[in-house]
Amino acid sequence: MSVNDDNSTAVDLALFGALGDLALRKLYVALYHLDREALMAPETRILGLARQEYDKDAFRARVRDALETRVRPDERTEESMNRFLARLDYIEIEFASPESYNQIAQWHGNSPRPLTIYLSVPARLYGEICANLSKSGCLDDESRVVVEKPIGYSLQTSEEINDAIGAVFDESRIYRIDHYLGKETVQNLLALRFANPLFGSQWNQSHISHVEITVAETVGIEGRWGYFDQAGQLRDMVQNHLMQLLCMIAMDPPSNLDADSIRDEKVKVLKALRPFEGERLSTDVVRGQYIAGTIAGKSVPGYLEEEGANVDSRTETFVAFKTEIQNWRWAGVPFYLRTGKRMPEKLSQIVIHFRPQSHYIFDNDQRSMAANKLIIRLQPDEGIALQVLTKDSGLDKGMRLRTGPLHLDFHQAFPSARIPDAYERLLLEVMKGQQYLFVRRDEIEYSWRWIDRMIEGWEARDILPKRYPAGSWGPVSSIAMITQDGRSWYEDY
Amino acid sequence: MSVNDDNSTAVDLALFGALGDLALRKLYVALYHLDREALMAPETRILGLARQEYDKDAFRARVRDALETRVRPDERTEESMNRFLARLDYIEIEFASPESYNQIAQWHGNSPRPLTIYLSVPARLYGEICANLSKSGCLDDESRVVVEKPIGYSLQTSEEINDAIGAVFDESRIYRIDHYLGKETVQNLLALRFANPLFGSQWNQSHISHVEITVAETVGIEGRWGYFDQAGQLRDMVQNHLMQLLCMIAMDPPSNLDADSIRDEKVKVLKALRPFEGERLSTDVVRGQYIAGTIAGKSVPGYLEEEGANVDSRTETFVAFKTEIQNWRWAGVPFYLRTGKRMPEKLSQIVIHFRPQSHYIFDNDQRSMAANKLIIRLQPDEGIALQVLTKDSGLDKGMRLRTGPLHLDFHQAFPSARIPDAYERLLLEVMKGQQYLFVRRDEIEYSWRWIDRMIEGWEARDILPKRYPAGSWGPVSSIAMITQDGRSWYEDY
Repeated sequence: MSVNDDNSTAVDLALFGALGDLALRKLYVALYHLDREALMAPETRILGLARQEYDKDAFRARVRDALETRVRPDERTEESMNRFLARLDYIEIEFASPESYNQIAQWHGNSPRPLTIYLSVPARLYGEICANLSKSGCLDDESRVVVEKPIGYSLQTSEEINDAIGAVFDESRIYRIDHYLGKETVQNLLALRFANPLFGSQWNQSHISHVEITVAETVGIEGRWGYFDQAGQLRDMVQNHLMQLLCMIAMDPPSNLDADSIRDEKVKVLKALRPFEGERLSTDVVRGQYIAGTIAGKSVPGYLEEEGANVDSRTETFVAFKTEIQNWRWAGVPFYLRTGKRMPEKLSQIVIHFRPQSHYIFDNDQRSMAANKLIIRLQPDEGIALQVLTKDSGLDKGMRLRTGPLHLDFHQAFPSARIPDAYERLLLEVMKGQQYLFVRRDEIEYSWRWIDRMIEGWEARDILPKRYPAGSWGPVSSIAMITQDGRSWYEDY
Repeated sequence: MSVNDDNSTAVDLALFGALGDLALRKLYVALYHLDREALMAPETRILGLARQEYDKDAFRARVRDALETRVRPDERTEESMNRFLARLDYIEIEFASPESYNQIAQWHGNSPRPLTIYLSVPARLYGEICANLSKSGCLDDESRVVVEKPIGYSLQTSEEINDAIGAVFDESRIYRIDHYLGKETVQNLLALRFANPLFGSQWNQSHISHVEITVAETVGIEGRWGYFDQAGQLRDMVQNHLMQLLCMIAMDPPSNLDADSIRDEKVKVLKALRPFEGERLSTDVVRGQYIAGTIAGKSVPGYLEEEGANVDSRTETFVAFKTEIQNWRWAGVPFYLRTGKRMPEKLSQIVIHFRPQSHYIFDNDQRSMAANKLIIRLQPDEGIALQVLTKDSGLDKGMRLRTGPLHLDFHQAFPSARIPDAYERLLLEVMKGQQYLFVRRDEIEYSWRWIDRMIEGWEARDILPKRYPAGSWGPVSSIAMITQDGRSWYEDY
């Protein structure tokens, strides 16, 4: 068994899918930044694994190219680039062939650094790769595995995949990525909720009237029609990202910051999430599918007109729903969630609406604005803002109120600071062996259970997606769903 | 009886002490700004009254001079100056001579505008002036009187003055100025507390651990030794300004914004204020008197070395105390107040300390910082800031917290906006006939009752002021008073 000094974060990182899109767009850039900021142990080595015929030098050249495209010139020097590239090796591998894994064992050798496998490949390959790694003898009790979503497309398929990984790696060694958890602002939610009594003490149904979560994309299918059509927006975005955001917002305070304390609380939220049944599948859920429209002045085709489309597809590209968490903290507080493709803007935000003042003594025409909101934004830029009412300072305004979002976060304090990408944080935590920002198996499974039930409901009741023009905020019924409660989706920031 | 249209703010303003310091420094400037911003009715006229031999033109020239010194060049034009000056008249008056008041009656004539008397003269003259005004027949049920502090130097003397004013003017026509109430930030407290459930719902002993109020001056006695020595800091600053701030912070929410609804609540605070008795006069109160020292690198004399000083004086130039409001909202919450002359900086601020989180899950060495504070600053600049804890965004910081004041107010939203001077707001409210920013008789009297009792205690126990060097934050025992409770006076902003 290899030994890893507690204070060292040195690892042998073996990256499957080393020439894939995620690796070239995100992973090397994130690893480079960790190296440059001296957060990567000097001994850490990185092994690229892919089917392509490459050698070490060609691989390094390819990674250099990726860095030059994606890292700002003022954040790289020849020296910092070379230092990072010198860590890289490459091995051509046939995923299905057990013999080719011997090369990994050879590369890892008797290194005291934990072998850390990063699976940036389709989930259907996870089982085979894990089994072959195991056979090759390169794994020990310190080895770790990092996997990307999607893990399955239903409870059953996710169980199969998790079983296959779990046959080789203990749960405490499995790092399931949901990159939303790596975002600074999502982690800031922990500080905001649990270090600020001002917010923490009001984080419940007595003080919060409702919560909104919006994850809007402007992109369409981007050449992945076949893949996406099998999944749909509910599986592709809600099962992972939106459920994770919901958990971070709604969980009871963990007793400490240990990975399992946090994840236990998240699971409790998923278990308390009200399932959709009967009429509510029609009244409280809206499925949508985009038709041709215009985004930023540019005409774009409808979902059924995209390249490779099956014109009979009933897959949703948009879903909005109103749900409830059936526990002491949240009973009676609606959670409105929506996510879609081909929306007017790229926008991920959570809005906590505090209850309005029950007695109101200022100008009556301003009554509707008199409520505090906390706005947590993940995209297009990260930040947290608090909406507070102050007196209008104009002399002629008497006691008229004014409302405005007041920015609370690092943006205000350090407007020039670089906000680290989610993958930097996540890779750093992997190297440190900290799991609190990764998704535990039961989280995935409770989430799938809830999602499966919604999909079964759709099928049983033959609920088809409603059409919405690309460049709109989804089917009008998704607006009506919140409007009929006397509310609206929050739009200003 | 003259008639004042509800929508009109037109008044005939008669200003006693028209060539005095306050008038020349503050009042004309404030009136000019109201005129320039079209907040003064076109019919409003202003009459200067003083003993000096002046005529209208000389008076206007003197006021022009004052405006040219005090109004920023980009805020005046020849036209705006002339329009304002054309409103001015002047009458030479012998305050003690009833006949000379006939000139005021003559000036006011049959004007439908309420005659509004502004007494910018020593309080000992209030009674005589009011009586003479009454005899001259120029007053009616619409007439108003504006008076400046100090109203007496004890409960008894304030009663005498208020009786004399009250013999002529109904309480609903008396506007007692405490210019702190005219400050935008103090009014903003109403919006902050009563329009923001986030703050309003936590404004009590369950959520607030303690409150600080500091009003520090850098000036010494400024040639007023004889006057000041009769009063002392407690009467001169605490009885009015600090008590008003305390009331605005501590009052229960008024049912509406009517003047008496607000003032009823303020009186309740004053009645619930715990008096100082027995040992507490020594442990919870610190009197101070400055000795020679240095402010901003400049040597300044001690209080007993100032021009005109009586070297045996026991008058305090500093006072700090810890008190409590004995009601449901505030039981057990210490209020620490301090005010002094010759402090290191000019600073008026209120700090609301929310209780810290009872369970704490972040780095233990940061535990002491994990509490929210609301900082309300009146001087040197007005503003409100909220101290919130966020996650340090540095990748190497893990879940370390960061704290920082986040500015909530008009400064942030409109950094270039001119903040109106307190007198602009107050004069505008006088013209509108709105009393909510003025002090009612019973407020003054309950405040004096409490102050008198403290002074009697000092005398009975022979408590002398402790010495502190000019340029320090007062006697060390004023620091010890809060330190022994495990707290400290808030210093960062």
